[in-house]
Amino acid sequence: MSNQFLTRRDQLRDRIRSTDIDGMLVTVEKNVSYLTGFSGDSTWLILTEETELLLSDFRYITQLEEECPDVELFIRTSKIQLTEALSGEVQERGIKRLGFESHAMTFGVYQSLQESLPDVEFVPVSWQVEELRAIKDAGEIEEIREAVRLAEKGFAFLQAILTPQATEQQLAYELEHAVRNFGGEELSFHPIIAVGDRSAMPHYRPGKLKIAESPILLVDWGAQTHLGYKSDLTRTMLTRSFSEEAKFETIYKTVLEAQRLAIEMIAPGVSCQTVDAVARDYINDAGFGEYFDHGLGHGIGLDIHELPRFSQSSDAPLEAGMVVTVEPGIYLGGWGGVRIEDDILVTDTGCEVLSSVPKDWESVRISV
Amino acid sequence: MSNQFLTRRDQLRDRIRSTDIDGMLVTVEKNVSYLTGFSGDSTWLILTEETELLLSDFRYITQLEEECPDVELFIRTSKIQLTEALSGEVQERGIKRLGFESHAMTFGVYQSLQESLPDVEFVPVSWQVEELRAIKDAGEIEEIREAVRLAEKGFAFLQAILTPQATEQQLAYELEHAVRNFGGEELSFHPIIAVGDRSAMPHYRPGKLKIAESPILLVDWGAQTHLGYKSDLTRTMLTRSFSEEAKFETIYKTVLEAQRLAIEMIAPGVSCQTVDAVARDYINDAGFGEYFDHGLGHGIGLDIHELPRFSQSSDAPLEAGMVVTVEPGIYLGGWGGVRIEDDILVTDTGCEVLSSVPKDWESVRISV
Repeated sequence: MSNQFLTRRDQLRDRIRSTDIDGMLVTVEKNVSYLTGFSGDSTWLILTEETELLLSDFRYITQLEEECPDVELFIRTSKIQLTEALSGEVQERGIKRLGFESHAMTFGVYQSLQESLPDVEFVPVSWQVEELRAIKDAGEIEEIREAVRLAEKGFAFLQAILTPQATEQQLAYELEHAVRNFGGEELSFHPIIAVGDRSAMPHYRPGKLKIAESPILLVDWGAQTHLGYKSDLTRTMLTRSFSEEAKFETIYKTVLEAQRLAIEMIAPGVSCQTVDAVARDYINDAGFGEYFDHGLGHGIGLDIHELPRFSQSSDAPLEAGMVVTVEPGIYLGGWGGVRIEDDILVTDTGCEVLSSVPKDWESVRISV
Repeated sequence: MSNQFLTRRDQLRDRIRSTDIDGMLVTVEKNVSYLTGFSGDSTWLILTEETELLLSDFRYITQLEEECPDVELFIRTSKIQLTEALSGEVQERGIKRLGFESHAMTFGVYQSLQESLPDVEFVPVSWQVEELRAIKDAGEIEEIREAVRLAEKGFAFLQAILTPQATEQQLAYELEHAVRNFGGEELSFHPIIAVGDRSAMPHYRPGKLKIAESPILLVDWGAQTHLGYKSDLTRTMLTRSFSEEAKFETIYKTVLEAQRLAIEMIAPGVSCQTVDAVARDYINDAGFGEYFDHGLGHGIGLDIHELPRFSQSSDAPLEAGMVVTVEPGIYLGGWGGVRIEDDILVTDTGCEVLSSVPKDWESVRISV
């Protein structure tokens, strides 16, 4: 992978060259990891046209030497703060205008850096590495495929162990354990396993409800590979007969068709808001507009929420190599909700749906 | 618990009253949770002398109504940014000087708030809620006791399933699954399960090494309760005979005695650096000073690293109700390390060690 990291640092240098900063300070943990291969934390990267340096501490010496042998290291002792260590290195490099990740650096750290380097201008530079990360290379796409595969195997296991007496929480724990047994690192986020009206809470945490307490079961889950790449899927099911099945069916099919229409739109050059609008308009026209109040989806990768974002306000165009979720939903508070979510790779000519868990209306009824 | 939250908000008001701000914006997720009982994210609290308001969004309506029925809510739609929603409410309350958590708020959010409210002065206010959180109330201490109990049950399970062929990673996964089966939420952090020379890496992540590959096994783990309170323990063991046992024994007994001396010092009024120095001086005098280069310990609670911090530079005094770790270590790169860590409650008269996993030299040799 070493060459990938060199390529990425050069891509960042290309971006820096088009600005008026003469160095970039990368402090976001996953950005440092993306640019260097280092998998620990508390470590900053300074990048200039000619140099690159990782500022870290004692705890990580061995790991840094093993994971990024090609990057110069500054290892501070516990008596030297990270900001102090940075000051010396910035001065030594003669950096006058230092870009920093203002969307992530705290105001407090900014203040202490500015105080310790009064002659350096700190220039807010946002989302530069995240924009690079939005376009996945071949190795990253393989990792995400693996994350999807792990999630799907986990889901098959979950369906196999479903019983009326199982609680949301027990199932969440078994799901993570299964994904690990299958070779994953962990679930890519706290899964949502929601019974009945809890399915109308888009950020519900699994609790004590038993499967038998309602026919509706919503599962929003994903798996993470050892290299940190993530998948993100949702399925909504009926675990037994339902007196309001007709209403549920209407909602389900509306969400499913909204998702299908949105996925059909995905291709390089299409704006994020266009894709969002296709699904949103369909749900609006079906009379459920007020019950869908979140973005249609988001990029996935090292983070579970990455660029791009499908929202009503994002006019960013899709590009080949992006991997996004499409996850429309309709939520009736106190009754229940339906969300369907898949992971989609933007290709040169359109898109490829990476996930394949059945979702047609015929697959909704599952046995427990 | 509702009364606890009122008490905490009043404690924060007491602190605000001694400053010249007329409102405080709380944006740190766990601080919002500590002050209101809300367990979700993306939600901010504005607190003034007379009012309190949670700014949240659509996804959390039900959860907010259930978890904090006594706090006024502002629920924004996805079309309104959190910063926009805040602007209106700050103006409505006539706040002129608004304190914000500068140790956590990003520079970018600060900038956008300042732009949208040019007439409001944003005053950096750091660690106010974290300082309140450092002193645990009776309910919190019970939660931490439970977190310790869960960790200890998990460790007993881990010892029971140890085999020569088990890998660090498999054991880490089984440990978390066990803690959940025993009634915990999850492990309180990614555990360190380190075989052989990996034990010298204070932030190692469990990998593919098998127990049989070296006699040394270091386990640094903790459990988290459903309310989010955490424990944090470390034990270092020998899983078979060791040609360098004499060297290991010297190091082990040095760490153990350093820990004992430090714990003996813990009482209200004693400064953090005094406790740190007792252990550090002992390790120095034994000739291992250069191999112990991290702080002696830290507070635990809703976060795994809280105030206070045992370091060479912290002169903050201990107070009754604090819960801290004491975790000296000696790390010989390429050979191995020893760390011993327990959780300690500062009491009115001294301290109480909450954890009880055996650690005397006789308990070091375990069978696999």
